[in-house]
Amino acid sequence: MALKVVCLVGGVGGAKLAHGLAQILEPGQLTVIVNTGDDFWHYGLRVCTDLDTVMYTLSGLANPATGWGIEGDTDGVLQGLRRYGEDTWFGIHDRDIATHLLRTQGLREGRRLTEVTRDLTTRLGIAHTILPMTDAPVATMVDTVEYGELEFQEYFVKYRWEPTVKVLRLQGIDAAALSAEAAAAIAGADVILFGPSNPWLSIMPILSVPGLHDALVARPVPRVAVTPIIQGAAVKGPASKLMAELGYKQAALSIVQYYQRVINGFVYDLRDGALSSETVHMVGMDTLMQSDGDRAVLARRVLDWVISWDPSPAGT
Amino acid sequence: MALKVVCLVGGVGGAKLAHGLAQILEPGQLTVIVNTGDDFWHYGLRVCTDLDTVMYTLSGLANPATGWGIEGDTDGVLQGLRRYGEDTWFGIHDRDIATHLLRTQGLREGRRLTEVTRDLTTRLGIAHTILPMTDAPVATMVDTVEYGELEFQEYFVKYRWEPTVKVLRLQGIDAAALSAEAAAAIAGADVILFGPSNPWLSIMPILSVPGLHDALVARPVPRVAVTPIIQGAAVKGPASKLMAELGYKQAALSIVQYYQRVINGFVYDLRDGALSSETVHMVGMDTLMQSDGDRAVLARRVLDWVISWDPSPAGT
Repeated sequence: MALKVVCLVGGVGGAKLAHGLAQILEPGQLTVIVNTGDDFWHYGLRVCTDLDTVMYTLSGLANPATGWGIEGDTDGVLQGLRRYGEDTWFGIHDRDIATHLLRTQGLREGRRLTEVTRDLTTRLGIAHTILPMTDAPVATMVDTVEYGELEFQEYFVKYRWEPTVKVLRLQGIDAAALSAEAAAAIAGADVILFGPSNPWLSIMPILSVPGLHDALVARPVPRVAVTPIIQGAAVKGPASKLMAELGYKQAALSIVQYYQRVINGFVYDLRDGALSSETVHMVGMDTLMQSDGDRAVLARRVLDWVISWDPSPAGT
Repeated sequence: MALKVVCLVGGVGGAKLAHGLAQILEPGQLTVIVNTGDDFWHYGLRVCTDLDTVMYTLSGLANPATGWGIEGDTDGVLQGLRRYGEDTWFGIHDRDIATHLLRTQGLREGRRLTEVTRDLTTRLGIAHTILPMTDAPVATMVDTVEYGELEFQEYFVKYRWEPTVKVLRLQGIDAAALSAEAAAAIAGADVILFGPSNPWLSIMPILSVPGLHDALVARPVPRVAVTPIIQGAAVKGPASKLMAELGYKQAALSIVQYYQRVINGFVYDLRDGALSSETVHMVGMDTLMQSDGDRAVLARRVLDWVISWDPSPAGT
């Protein structure tokens, strides 16, 4: 049986699980649906940070030290911009800019982000399907105590997620639509995974695309989140800080609470001891993916676990 | 007396004379009007090769080995594009791309090329005025025996000016207009120089901007071309090859013939012996600018010569 898997992800953490799945699944089995709320225009280029991270990770180009960007990339364009007196707070590097140039050119020619992404991934030799959550421009806006409302990359990169978050807003989400490609992938999925990404900054935008949440919960299949929180802390990024600011307890079970309407399974980390829930299947695993091999092992264990479920999982 | 000088130029050769003038004139005295017929869109970026060459030369950034591009520039973006399978026939380098990004962003925001260029030159510390010949998009199209009509950069870079030229066409020239800035510079000029640029590929497009030729010849001042041809050969580029293809004798005097309706003075190279003309003032100088100092010396000699003219030069 060729299990069809849909995995929802943001950037670095989610990309690792997607890479694990990519290593163990055949082409046609895996569709990765990626947050585009972080996308922005920078120097006239359409930069899609999460799509890029997933593309670079699945093609083996990613910088292993950071998880984002391209290994060995250079900063010639940044140096050029600084010569003009530009404040280069966003690190747009040279090989990465080739991606942005090709993407921007495709979009300006009227092609959809889904089509442009398929073209780029094919040219990078990626056999699996990577989809943006929508073809419409959506921008995650972060209202902060210190600076008022910031664009996502200002909050995340310029201010290094130091500001205190009051509320998140998805600009453009009402006009966004589920793409035919994403709808078909979800409708055909045997397993739906939520990568260990930031639930509020990475997964919430995906679930907010009109029609996507309903399409997900309509699937009577395992819908399983992998925790981004281990022992109350985020493996990477602001997830733990943010959940406190938004009024959640800094714990893996808060993720279950946040996702309760959409998941029926949850993978927590073994370091949290034994957790349980009345509403969703739960299991503990080593979720800390430190090597390419770790990613494949976790992906394999998660799929083996969901296959072992009773045919009618809780909550479906 | 603060002599006001307008210098018409294309790329490398003209930029050298402009640099010589820039070294000996004060801010406010020099306006360089630059060919934009070579400009093109490349990966969604507006590339203005002659404007860039003049900017980089006057700011001291130019690569001395080539005359164009930025010294020490890198090819990270090109490497990135090649990874996507792109045929990178046009060498768009990293620091140079910073220029194209800022220019393209300015144009997309609705600013005129003249305004964008002023901003870029100011930020590079250039005290003199560099103007595009027009704010309208004009494209020099090269009809060739071998490939039919080519865009300029295809002819010049992709095919290394090897095709045989039948005729040149300036796409968009009828809709182009003389900018207020260029008109004012010409109207106030005490001396008008034609740099040692390719007359057909670099200067003809400038002279073809509606109103520009008439504005030039209306000025009762020295209008002097510096030869791009020495002993029948071009110092650089296709000028000599092209003049044969277009039916001209490969000699400096053919330049006088080509410019006869607009110039009243001509500087030929000493290596050509003694040349004379019945219609224009002529003088021989060492026009081969091999160092920054050579550029200033030639500029000084040309200005000294035109200042020595009878107040009513021939042809005015």
